[in-house]
Amino acid sequence: MNLEDMILISVDDHVVEPPEMFDQHMTQKELETIAPRLVEEDGKNFWLYEGHKIGNMGLNAVVGRPKEEYGMEPLRYEDMRKGVYSIDERIGDMDANGILSSICFPTFPTFAGNLFHQAKDKKGAKRVIEAYNDWHIDEWAGAHPGRIIPLALLPIWDSELMVNEVKRVVAKGCKAISFPDNPTFHGFPSIHNAHWDKLWEVCAENDVVINCHIGTGAQPPHSSPETPIDAWIAAFPMSIANSAADWLYGEFLLKYDNLKISLTEGGVGWVPYFLERAEFTLDHHGAWTKSNFGDKRPREVFQEHFLTCFIEDESGLRNRDLVGIENILFECDYPHSDSTWPMTPENTFRQLDNVGLSDEEIDKVTHLNAIKHFNYDPIAILGRENCTVGALREKAKQAGVDTTEKSGGGNSANISDRSGRMTSGEVQKLFAGEGAAVDD
Amino acid sequence: MNLEDMILISVDDHVVEPPEMFDQHMTQKELETIAPRLVEEDGKNFWLYEGHKIGNMGLNAVVGRPKEEYGMEPLRYEDMRKGVYSIDERIGDMDANGILSSICFPTFPTFAGNLFHQAKDKKGAKRVIEAYNDWHIDEWAGAHPGRIIPLALLPIWDSELMVNEVKRVVAKGCKAISFPDNPTFHGFPSIHNAHWDKLWEVCAENDVVINCHIGTGAQPPHSSPETPIDAWIAAFPMSIANSAADWLYGEFLLKYDNLKISLTEGGVGWVPYFLERAEFTLDHHGAWTKSNFGDKRPREVFQEHFLTCFIEDESGLRNRDLVGIENILFECDYPHSDSTWPMTPENTFRQLDNVGLSDEEIDKVTHLNAIKHFNYDPIAILGRENCTVGALREKAKQAGVDTTEKSGGGNSANISDRSGRMTSGEVQKLFAGEGAAVDD
Repeated sequence: MNLEDMILISVDDHVVEPPEMFDQHMTQKELETIAPRLVEEDGKNFWLYEGHKIGNMGLNAVVGRPKEEYGMEPLRYEDMRKGVYSIDERIGDMDANGILSSICFPTFPTFAGNLFHQAKDKKGAKRVIEAYNDWHIDEWAGAHPGRIIPLALLPIWDSELMVNEVKRVVAKGCKAISFPDNPTFHGFPSIHNAHWDKLWEVCAENDVVINCHIGTGAQPPHSSPETPIDAWIAAFPMSIANSAADWLYGEFLLKYDNLKISLTEGGVGWVPYFLERAEFTLDHHGAWTKSNFGDKRPREVFQEHFLTCFIEDESGLRNRDLVGIENILFECDYPHSDSTWPMTPENTFRQLDNVGLSDEEIDKVTHLNAIKHFNYDPIAILGRENCTVGALREKAKQAGVDTTEKSGGGNSANISDRSGRMTSGEVQKLFAGEGAAVDD
Repeated sequence: MNLEDMILISVDDHVVEPPEMFDQHMTQKELETIAPRLVEEDGKNFWLYEGHKIGNMGLNAVVGRPKEEYGMEPLRYEDMRKGVYSIDERIGDMDANGILSSICFPTFPTFAGNLFHQAKDKKGAKRVIEAYNDWHIDEWAGAHPGRIIPLALLPIWDSELMVNEVKRVVAKGCKAISFPDNPTFHGFPSIHNAHWDKLWEVCAENDVVINCHIGTGAQPPHSSPETPIDAWIAAFPMSIANSAADWLYGEFLLKYDNLKISLTEGGVGWVPYFLERAEFTLDHHGAWTKSNFGDKRPREVFQEHFLTCFIEDESGLRNRDLVGIENILFECDYPHSDSTWPMTPENTFRQLDNVGLSDEEIDKVTHLNAIKHFNYDPIAILGRENCTVGALREKAKQAGVDTTEKSGGGNSANISDRSGRMTSGEVQKLFAGEGAAVDD
């Protein structure tokens, strides 16, 4: 296969919500009372919500900037690349990067909506979540059919409300939800609790994928304030293994064959070890822990139910027979700092080529697995000849999408002056100072 | 290679300290005032130390019992297999399991000695640590030359004291220390702090290996009280990846080429992913984080300095080219619940055979790497013909070592009655109830 012939569906990107997002989806009274509100203070943009003041920190919008300026996020919309928050420009950026379709996680509500889940006014928060989903499905995903696979937030504090919201968004064509990898860590019942029984049922009945993005429940600790921040960045994706184990032992998985859990941005290469360890644990400890996998083995349960995601992961691709070729999905992570935009096709193809995947395997991990598991087929909508990296990049070229790096804006000046290694302590201070979101 | 021809050196086992351990190594006055003291209360043995009451919980002494009784530890010495705490019987158990040599981590002080590190009477604790090391080196390791690779605890709260203790134990022939994988989590300076500079120096000068056992600093969180305990057991070893990242970015590694860090019981199979992620982090974030690996790459630094350990780990062995064949060491974990005693040779050989290691590679991971990195050569002491699995098992047979399972004793009755899966919440309650050690 040539690079230009790949078809890339990314199951993990992010949207920075535009200022006017709620305008068409709430009444004037709601907008004035319960809706999150965008403000500018001291040359910085913030969302205000129930006394929280949330900036766009967290390496969340660095795409298109020189790498030297990562960790020095733009603080106003003007400082960001437009594709970060504007859907028309986003499509251009996807074209330039050869990305056919994209799942976009929230930013200011945090990736799974914990800001809303913690709301004091739960009735108001329910309405905000509905409006968020309507904006996301109707405007963000609706503007360019086939390009955005819609993703919904849920009012997870109430069993009936969340089931109703799943049914409501399914009726609007949305078959993916963002869900905390560990709700216990935010004060909600554990995934083993009956609180969620109806949710698993409605997701299984409607083929709705449960997307657990890293950082939405468990988080790796910063080893110390003096530790180079690189250590935390390097260890972060793998830290979802702890939550993956929690899900793997969920007895509800034995009840619903088609329930799918995506370990979003969690990487792949650690999975063979993780599964071997789960098998050992069953054989070696099962007699006293009384594990229950029905008549299955842990590896089998994992392969039936879990989706893993790769950005750069030759170790995972090399061991695809141990992970399951159907369980590996491509992701881009635009506009976050781990994204390789606009060179993602090159970066991805190099890995597939180094490891030596067959054309059939390449098609699976780049798009066929996503189409199958997310029940969303952009090729049927747009025609295969318009879906390849080559075709999309040609479209971007015709449209004149400019991918050159743009410097400046944001708080870069404060940081680029410093010398020596950036530590966990410094980055934690920066996050705290700029109004980071509640859980990531 | 045949199973009988393997030579097995285990770099991770444990000793449950015998009651009389301090008698020959402290004055009568010290024994009466500052030494930990063994007591029996309500038919259970405890160590008393500065108001702490420490039982032998933590799946720490289950060897030789039916698997159904794991998690129901013996609470008195009489309930344990003698090899757990008696060196002569330990050697018999090693013989029966074909284990030539063994590194034994402490039990009641916790694996890296945190019980002593947290002492209020630091002067007393220094003496206790010295006495502990003298007992371990002179009695436990000294009784059967070549069979126990000695391991020392350190008074880590004081730079000068710990350097002196390293020099003292090195003079006694001990070239390995047990050290917390993350001292910050116990209130000590981070490994990046100047507090440790002289320690790294003295370890490098004397080829002393720093052994970081899982659970001595970082710990994986229990996902919820309702989570099956299996999830925690399965995820535990890999949770050291976070601390491994902390060490990987230690600039002192660039200064001392021969400094070795053992990620004890941390497994191997996740390492290829971890290193790939560290390489990506350097290339992708280095420009703003200003990482410093000198003229080296993260993978190179890892392979120069880190030792990884396997019990059952075909995924790690399969990817040995990515980890480094010199960086993989065998461990047994006797008498803990993960140990496969007395069938460890069978369990180990099956993996090596399945993956297809060459004889040269088998020799490296089973014993040559341990001999090289720990600077301890039992073959030179005992003669090769006496060191193989076949020879040791023949010796055990002649001596009549009984390896049949023995049921009963301990708190098994309380637990075997229960039905359904054992959860994190239940195990945490058990640990709390029985006087668990401070950090594991």
